[in-house]
Amino acid sequence: MLVHLLYASRAASPVTAATIDSILHQSLARNPGIGITGVLCHAGDVFMQVLEGGRTQVNELYNAIVRDPRHRQVMLLHYEELPERRFGSWTMGHVRLDRINPSLLLKYSEKPQLDPFAVSGQASLALLRELVATAQIVGRAG
Amino acid sequence: MLVHLLYASRAASPVTAATIDSILHQSLARNPGIGITGVLCHAGDVFMQVLEGGRTQVNELYNAIVRDPRHRQVMLLHYEELPERRFGSWTMGHVRLDRINPSLLLKYSEKPQLDPFAVSGQASLALLRELVATAQIVGRAG
Amino acid sequence: MLVHLLYASRAASPVTAATIDSILHQSLARNPGIGITGVLCHAGDVFMQVLEGGRTQVNELYNAIVRDPRHRQVMLLHYEELPERRFGSWTMGHVRLDRINPSLLLKYSEKPQLDPFAVSGQASLALLRELVATAQIVGRAG
Amino acid sequence: MLVHLLYASRAASPVTAATIDSILHQSLARNPGIGITGVLCHAGDVFMQVLEGGRTQVNELYNAIVRDPRHRQVMLLHYEELPERRFGSWTMGHVRLDRINPSLLLKYSEKPQLDPFAVSGQASLALLRELVATAQIVGRAG
Amino acid sequence: MLVHLLYASRAASPVTAATIDSILHQSLARNPGIGITGVLCHAGDVFMQVLEGGRTQVNELYNAIVRDPRHRQVMLLHYEELPERRFGSWTMGHVRLDRINPSLLLKYSEKPQLDPFAVSGQASLALLRELVATAQIVGRAG
Amino acid sequence: MLVHLLYASRAASPVTAATIDSILHQSLARNPGIGITGVLCHAGDVFMQVLEGGRTQVNELYNAIVRDPRHRQVMLLHYEELPERRFGSWTMGHVRLDRINPSLLLKYSEKPQLDPFAVSGQASLALLRELVATAQIVGRAG
Amino acid sequence: MLVHLLYASRAASPVTAATIDSILHQSLARNPGIGITGVLCHAGDVFMQVLEGGRTQVNELYNAIVRDPRHRQVMLLHYEELPERRFGSWTMGHVRLDRINPSLLLKYSEKPQLDPFAVSGQASLALLRELVATAQIVGRAG
Amino acid sequence: MLVHLLYASRAASPVTAATIDSILHQSLARNPGIGITGVLCHAGDVFMQVLEGGRTQVNELYNAIVRDPRHRQVMLLHYEELPERRFGSWTMGHVRLDRINPSLLLKYSEKPQLDPFAVSGQASLALLRELVATAQIVGRAG
Amino acid sequence: MLVHLLYASRAASPVTAATIDSILHQSLARNPGIGITGVLCHAGDVFMQVLEGGRTQVNELYNAIVRDPRHRQVMLLHYEELPERRFGSWTMGHVRLDRINPSLLLKYSEKPQLDPFAVSGQASLALLRELVATAQIVGRAG
Amino acid sequence: MLVHLLYASRAASPVTAATIDSILHQSLARNPGIGITGVLCHAGDVFMQVLEGGRTQVNELYNAIVRDPRHRQVMLLHYEELPERRFGSWTMGHVRLDRINPSLLLKYSEKPQLDPFAVSGQASLALLRELVATAQIVGRAG
Ligand SMILES: Cc1cc2nc3c(=O)[nH]c(=O)nc-3n(C[C@H](O)[C@H](O)[C@H](O)COP(=O)(O)O)c2cc1C
Ligand SMILES: Cc1cc2nc3c(=O)[nH]c(=O)nc-3n(C[C@H](O)[C@H](O)[C@H](O)COP(=O)(O)O)c2cc1C
Ligand SMILES: Cc1cc2nc3c(=O)[nH]c(=O)nc-3n(C[C@H](O)[C@H](O)[C@H](O)COP(=O)(O)O)c2cc1C
Ligand SMILES: Cc1cc2nc3c(=O)[nH]c(=O)nc-3n(C[C@H](O)[C@H](O)[C@H](O)COP(=O)(O)O)c2cc1C
Ligand SMILES: Cc1cc2nc3c(=O)[nH]c(=O)nc-3n(C[C@H](O)[C@H](O)[C@H](O)COP(=O)(O)O)c2cc1C
Ligand SMILES: Cc1cc2nc3c(=O)[nH]c(=O)nc-3n(C[C@H](O)[C@H](O)[C@H](O)COP(=O)(O)O)c2cc1C
Ligand SMILES: Cc1cc2nc3c(=O)[nH]c(=O)nc-3n(C[C@H](O)[C@H](O)[C@H](O)COP(=O)(O)O)c2cc1C
Ligand SMILES: Cc1cc2nc3c(=O)[nH]c(=O)nc-3n(C[C@H](O)[C@H](O)[C@H](O)COP(=O)(O)O)c2cc1C
Ligand SMILES: Cc1cc2nc3c(=O)[nH]c(=O)nc-3n(C[C@H](O)[C@H](O)[C@H](O)COP(=O)(O)O)c2cc1C
Ligand SMILES: Cc1cc2nc3c(=O)[nH]c(=O)nc-3n(C[C@H](O)[C@H](O)[C@H](O)COP(=O)(O)O)c2cc1C
Repeated sequence: MLVHLLYASRAASPVTAATIDSILHQSLARNPGIGITGVLCHAGDVFMQVLEGGRTQVNELYNAIVRDPRHRQVMLLHYEELPERRFGSWTMGHVRLDRINPSLLLKYSEKPQLDPFAVSGQASLALLRELVATAQIVGRAG
Repeated sequence: MLVHLLYASRAASPVTAATIDSILHQSLARNPGIGITGVLCHAGDVFMQVLEGGRTQVNELYNAIVRDPRHRQVMLLHYEELPERRFGSWTMGHVRLDRINPSLLLKYSEKPQLDPFAVSGQASLALLRELVATAQIVGRAG
Repeated sequence: MLVHLLYASRAASPVTAATIDSILHQSLARNPGIGITGVLCHAGDVFMQVLEGGRTQVNELYNAIVRDPRHRQVMLLHYEELPERRFGSWTMGHVRLDRINPSLLLKYSEKPQLDPFAVSGQASLALLRELVATAQIVGRAG
Repeated sequence: MLVHLLYASRAASPVTAATIDSILHQSLARNPGIGITGVLCHAGDVFMQVLEGGRTQVNELYNAIVRDPRHRQVMLLHYEELPERRFGSWTMGHVRLDRINPSLLLKYSEKPQLDPFAVSGQASLALLRELVATAQIVGRAG
Repeated sequence: MLVHLLYASRAASPVTAATIDSILHQSLARNPGIGITGVLCHAGDVFMQVLEGGRTQVNELYNAIVRDPRHRQVMLLHYEELPERRFGSWTMGHVRLDRINPSLLLKYSEKPQLDPFAVSGQASLALLRELVATAQIVGRAG
Repeated sequence: MLVHLLYASRAASPVTAATIDSILHQSLARNPGIGITGVLCHAGDVFMQVLEGGRTQVNELYNAIVRDPRHRQVMLLHYEELPERRFGSWTMGHVRLDRINPSLLLKYSEKPQLDPFAVSGQASLALLRELVATAQIVGRAG
Repeated sequence: MLVHLLYASRAASPVTAATIDSILHQSLARNPGIGITGVLCHAGDVFMQVLEGGRTQVNELYNAIVRDPRHRQVMLLHYEELPERRFGSWTMGHVRLDRINPSLLLKYSEKPQLDPFAVSGQASLALLRELVATAQIVGRAG
Repeated sequence: MLVHLLYASRAASPVTAATIDSILHQSLARNPGIGITGVLCHAGDVFMQVLEGGRTQVNELYNAIVRDPRHRQVMLLHYEELPERRFGSWTMGHVRLDRINPSLLLKYSEKPQLDPFAVSGQASLALLRELVATAQIVGRAG
Repeated sequence: MLVHLLYASRAASPVTAATIDSILHQSLARNPGIGITGVLCHAGDVFMQVLEGGRTQVNELYNAIVRDPRHRQVMLLHYEELPERRFGSWTMGHVRLDRINPSLLLKYSEKPQLDPFAVSGQASLALLRELVATAQIVGRAG
Repeated sequence: MLVHLLYASRAASPVTAATIDSILHQSLARNPGIGITGVLCHAGDVFMQVLEGGRTQVNELYNAIVRDPRHRQVMLLHYEELPERRFGSWTMGHVRLDRINPSLLLKYSEKPQLDPFAVSGQASLALLRELVATAQIVGRAG
C-alpha cells in the first residue's frame, strides 16, 4: 500500500549547508533500499518534506524523523493512501527555497515566506506541486 | 487564512488623477508589508477594488477603507476564503477603465458603464477576471 | 439583471429587403441607447430574433414587438436570466439565411428549412450559436 | 410542447374585487378549452401569474394579456419548456396575498411585500412553489 | 438582491446585560424598517452576528457597525448573495451562549469556547445552523 | 484547524487491564485541557486510536505517543483536516473489542480479528464509525 | 439482453370491447411463452403499448404488430436496453383510460386527452409510470 | 421531433452489388424529400442502418423497411430523440465493410466480423461513430 | 484486500440433494477457517455462487472450484475489490431457487429461469442482492 | 459480451526464453481463432497477463491457464465487462520488463519490482496502461 506523507518541522538550531548535506546524504543512503521517494524543502528554520512509499516504510521513517533531535514541532500536514506516487522520480529531491520567486510563496500564504504551520495541508501540497510543475526541484534521480 | 474581498464605492468628490495617485501611493506603501495584493478600478465616480491576503489584514484594511472620507456607499460585492490568491501578482494593480472597450463592460451589464451597484458580485468578479485574462491591468509588481 | 429572449414570428405580408432594412434601421436607432444587443434572422416569412439586455428594457421592447403589425404569431422560444451576454457584440446582427448551407438547417430540424415553430427552443438556440461560431452573422458593431 | 410562463405586471388603476372577479371569470371561461392551467396572485397594484399549457396556446394568451389595458409593465420572469405541468390542478388558482404571512414574503425579498420587479425569476418561482406547498391557493379545479 | 453577512468582533469593554439590551433594542427599533433579519451571539468579549437583507441595507448597517466604538476587530467571516433568507424569522434573534452545551462548541473548534477568529467562516456558519436546528435562539419575531 | 488522526500500534508487552486503565487515566487527565477527543480500541496486542483536536495539539500528542515505550510499530492509518469533529463526545472513548460481534470485524477484514495493519485506513475508519453507530463505545463524556 | 419498447398507433376502425379482448387474448396466449411482459393502453382510436423482454422476442413481436391490419401509424416512442424490467409483473396489463382522472392526462400534455403522437417519448413513459405508481393497471399476473 | 434509429437485419438472399445499388438508389430517391439522413453498412448477409429525421418520417420508413422482403430478422438496436442529427451530412452514406480494418471490428465484438445481433446497441453505435470519425463513409451528399 | 467473486457453472451430472449437501458441508468445514463468506444458488443444472474474503483465499478456493469435476463451464460473472463484504453474514448461505417467485427471475432475464450465462454480471448481482433484501437466503451463520 | 481479465501467477520453475516462446507460440496459434487479444508480462518468476475477448472464450482460456502446471498461485487482479477492448491490437503483446525503466515500476509499487500480488488490481492495470501509452509492448499484430 503506497502512502504519501507531508510534514513540517522547525530546526533545533540554525540550519547550515552541512545540516542539509547530512540529511540528504542519509536520505540517499537509506531511501532507495526501502523504496522511499520524496522532496525536502527548507527556508530559514522551517523544513517541509514529502515522503512516499510503502505504508510500513514511510511510517518507520517518519517515526525516526519524529525522534530526530535536529528538529522539533514535527507536524503532519497531509497523509493519504495513493494508487501511484506523485514524486516518484526523486530519491529525495531538494528545493532551494531561497532561490524561489517570492510571489510563488505569496500565492499560497499570507506572507511571502514558507510557513506551513499557518496554512492548511492542501495549500502546502499545492505549493509543492507547483514547484514540481515549474521544475524547481534539484537532485533528480530515477 | 487567505481571503478575497471585492467591494465598490462612490467617490465623495470628483476623482482626479491626484486622488488615484494618492490611493495607489498609500497602497504601495502599506500593502507589501501586510501581504495584501489586489486591483483597483475606477470609472467616473465609481471605485471597485479587490483585496487579497490574510483574513485579519484584509479586514483591518477594509475597515480603514470603510472609514475613508474620500468615498461613500462602500458595498461588499464578494468575499471568500481561498486556497490560493487570484491576483497575487499585483501589490495593487490598476485598471484604466476609460481605455477599456465598452463592449467588455456591456457583456456583463445592462449599460456600457461600470455599475457594480446594479449587478451581482459574480458578474463584477467575472469582469475583473476578464480584465486580467486580457492583460488590461497595469502596475504589475511581483 | 441581464436577460436573453429568443422568439419567432411570421411576417404579416411577404418580406422584402425594404422590410428588413426598416426593422434593422429601427433597431440600430433604438437599441444602443437602451443597451439591447442581439441577432435577427429571417427565412421566407419566418422571423427569429434574440434580444439581450436589461430585463426591463428587453421586456419593453418585446411588448412593442408583440404589438408590431408587420408580423403575427409572435412566440417565445427561450428566456433566461444570464450572468453575461452571449451576443454582446451585435447591436443587432443579421443572418442572411438564404445564404446558409441547407445541411446546417437540417442538422437541427426535420426539413432543411428554418422552422422554429416546430422545434424546441433549445434547438433554435443551438442553431443560432452555430451561426455565431461559423461567423455567419453580419453587421458586427461593437 | 408544454411550457411554463411566469410574468408580473402593474394594474393600470386600483385593483378592486370586481377587477379580479372579471379576470378570473375570463380565465375560467377560456382556459379549459385551450388547456391552460395556472395561478394568479395580486397584492396592491402588482399582478403575478403563471400560465402553463401548449406552447402555442400559452403564447397566444400571453400576447393577449400583454395588450390588455387593465395593466402595464408586463414583464416576463420565467419561461421554460416542461416535461410535465407543475400547476396542473388549477384552471386558474388564486392567491389572496393579503392573507399571507409577511415573513413568507420576507423570505424571498428585501421587504415584506410582493415585488417581483425587484427579484430574480427564480425567487418569484420559489415563492409560488412555497405557496402551493403550504396550500395557500384557492379555486382548486381538477 | 438578498445577502447574508456573518462577522465577529471583540467588545471594547466587558459586556454587561445592559450592553446586550441596548444593542438588541437598537436592532429591534431599526431592522424591521429596513428589512434586516438575523441573529446575535456573544460569549465573553466575543460577538458574532448574522445580518440578512437587501444588499444595500446590509452594507449600510455593517458600515455603521464597523464604526461602533463598543467593539473592535470587526472581521467578516462569510458573505453571500442568497436566493432566500436562512434566518428570516428573527428580527434579531439572540443566543445565550453561556447556556450552550460546551460539546457543541467543541464540535467546531479546538477549544470548548466560541472563537470565530480562529476557525473558518464555514465552521462558524455551521455552528450557527446547528443552534437554529436545535432551537437555541430566543427572541423569535416573525 | 481541526484534524482527525487514526493510527494503530502493537503493545510492547501483553496488554493488561492495568495498562489500559493507565492509558485511559492519562488521557482523561490531559486531553480535556488541550481539547483532544477520540476513541481507543484494543484487541490482543493491537491498539487503534482516533485523536481529534487542534492540529498542533494532535501532533504534539501523537509525537509523544510515537515515543511511548509501551507500544511499537506505530502506524498512521488516516489523517484529515475536518470542518467538524466526528468523535467530539468522547474525551477518550473506549471500545472493548473482546465483546464485539466477530461478524462486524469480518465485514471489514479477511479474518474475524482486528488487524489494521492489513487493511486500508478507510476500512479501519469505517469499522470505527460502525462501532459509533451501533453504540459500542463506553466512557461517554461530553 | 432485456429491452423495453414503447409505441403508439391508431386503430384502423373504431375500437370495440371485442377488439381489445381479442388483442389481450392473443397477448396472454403468446407472451408468457416468449417471456414478454408489458401494458396496453387505449383511448379513443389511440393505442399505446409497452413491450418488455428479450431483444429478439420483442423485435419479432413488434414486427408482427407493425404488420397487424387492425391499426396503422405504428410509431416508436421509446426503446432502451434495460438491466431489469419495469413492468415485469404484467403478462399484458391493461389500462382503462376512460376511467382515468383527466388531470393526470393534462399533467403530461397540452389537452386532457391521450395523444402520444404529440409529445416526447419521455412524457409518455412518465405517464405510464404514474399509472403504475397509482395502481391504475388491471390484469396483474405474476 | 428529430429521432435517431439504428437497426440490423439479415438479407433474405445473398447480397450482390445490385441489391446494394437498388437500395441506395431507392434511398437517394426518397430520403431527401422526407428529410431522412443516415448510413447503410453491410457485411456478408448482415445489414446495419442508421435513419435520422422527423419522428413520423423515420417511423414510416422503418415500417416499410420492416416489411421489405429483401431482408428478415429486422431488429432495433438503438432509438433516441435527438436535439441534433449525428449523421446529417449523408442522404444515405455507405460503408464498404469488406474494406474495413478487421481490428476495428474486433474492438467492439468477440470476433472480427460485424455481428450487431450479438452485441449491445451501444457497441454498434460506437462502431458507427468510429467509422465516421475515421472517414470510412462514402457517398457524402450535403 | 477483500474481494468479491461471482461465478456460474453447470453441474456435470443431475444435481441431487446429496450433491448440494456435500458442497455445503465442504464449504462450512473449510470457509470459516480461511475467512470466506458467500452464497450458493442452484436451479436445474446451473450453479451460481458468491465468494467473499481475502484476495489470496478467494483465488485459491476459486482455482480449486474450477478444477472440481462436479461441474463444468465455470464462468466468472463479476469480480471486485471491496472496502467491506456484502454477504458477510453467511459462511455459505443457500438459496432454494425452486421456491423463488418466477417473476423475480423474470425481472432480470428473458425467461423465468436462472440463466446467468445469458445475462450480464451486473444483472446476476442485482438478482442476488434482491434475494438478500427479500430474505430468501437460508443458513445464516454469523 | 466482451470481458477484460487481468491475472498474475508465479512460474513453477525458473522462466527461460524457451518458456516464454512456448507460451507466446501457443497464444498466437490459438487466440486469433477464438477472438482473444491481450498482453503478457513477466519479470523474474512473476507472470501478469491481460486477456480480452468474448466472455465464454476468456473464461475457457482462463480455466485452462489455471490448470497449466507451468505456473501456480494464479490470482485474478481485475475482471470487467467492457463496451470495447483496450488491448485489441495485440493477439498477445509481450512486455520485456527487464528493459523497463525501474522508476515506472516504482511509481505503482513499494519496491522497483513487478509485484502484482502486493498491490491492488487498479494499480496493476494502471501500470499496464502506462506501458501501452509509452509504447513498450512488442509483438503488435493487428
Ligand atoms: C528534516 C529531516 C529529514 C530527514 N529525511 C530523511 C530521509 O528522507 N531519509 C532518511 O533515511 N533519513 C532522513 N532523516 C534522518 C532521520 O531522521 C534519521 O536521522 C536517519 O534516518 C537516521 O537513521 P539511522 O537510524 O540510520 O541513524 C531526516 C532528518 C531530518 C531532520
Ligand atoms: C478606493 C480606495 C482604495 C484604497 N486602497 C488602499 C489599499 O489597497 N491599501 C492601503 O493601504 N490603503 C488604501 N486606501 C487608503 C485607506 O483608506 C487609508 O486611507 C489608508 O490605508 C490610511 O492609512 P493610514 O492608516 O496609514 O492613514 C484606499 C482608499 C480608497 C478611497
Ligand atoms: C421582426 C421585428 C424585429 C424588430 N426588432 C426591433 C429591435 O431590435 N429594436 C427596435 O427598436 N425595434 C425593433 N422592431 C420594431 C418594433 O416592433 C417597433 O416597431 C419599434 O421599436 C417601434 O418603435 P417606436 O416605438 O419608436 O415606433 C422590430 C420589429 C419586427 C417586426
Ligand atoms: C392580470 C391578467 C390576467 C389574465 N389572465 C387571463 C387568463 O388566464 N386567461 C384568459 O383567458 N384571460 C386572461 N386575462 C384576460 C386577457 O388579457 C384578455 O382580456 C382575455 O383573454 C380577453 O379575451 P377575449 O379575446 O375573449 O376578449 C387576464 C388579464 C389580466 C389583466
Ligand atoms: C455587536 C453589535 C451589533 C449590532 N447590531 C445592530 C443591528 O442589528 N441593527 C442595528 O440597527 N444596530 C446594530 N448595532 C448598533 C449599530 O452599530 C449602531 O450603533 C446603530 O445602528 C446606531 O444607529 P444610529 O445610526 O441610529 O445611531 C450593533 C452594534 C453592535 C456593537
Ligand atoms: C496506545 C496509547 C494511547 C495513548 N493515548 C493517550 C491520549 O489520548 N492522551 C494522552 O495524554 N496520552 C496518551 N497516551 C500516553 C502518552 O503516550 C504519554 O505517555 C502521555 O501523554 C505522557 O504524558 P506525559 O508527557 O505527561 O508523561 C497513550 C499511550 C498509548 C500507548
Ligand atoms: C395494439 C395491438 C397490440 C398487440 N399486442 C400483442 C401482444 O402483446 N402480444 C401478442 O402476441 N400479440 C399482440 N398483438 C397481436 C399481434 O399484432 C399479432 O396479431 C399476433 O401476435 C398474431 O399472432 P399470430 O402470428 O399468432 O397470428 C397486438 C395487436 C395490436 C393491434
Ligand atoms: C436494408 C435496407 C435499407 C433500406 N433503406 C432505405 C432508405 O433509407 N430509404 C428508402 O426510401 N428505402 C429504403 N429501403 C427500401 C424500403 O424498404 C422500401 O423498399 C422502399 O422505401 C420502397 O419504397 P416504395 O414504398 O416507394 O416502394 C431499404 C431497404 C432495405 C432492405
Ligand atoms: C458449485 C460448487 C461450490 C463449491 N463451493 C465451495 C466452497 O464455498 N468452499 C469450499 O471449501 N469448497 C467448495 N466447493 C468444493 C471445492 O470445489 C472443492 O471440492 C473443495 O474445496 C475440496 O476441498 P479439498 O481440497 O479439501 O478436497 C464447491 C464445489 C462446487 C462444485
Ligand atoms: C502465463 C501463461 C499464459 C498463457 N497464455 C495463453 C494464451 O494467451 N493463449 C493460449 O492459448 N494459451 C496460453 N497459455 C497456455 C495455456 O495455459 C494452455 O497451455 C494452452 O492453451 C493449452 O492449450 P491446449 O488445450 O491446446 O493444450 C498460457 C500459459 C501460461 C503459463
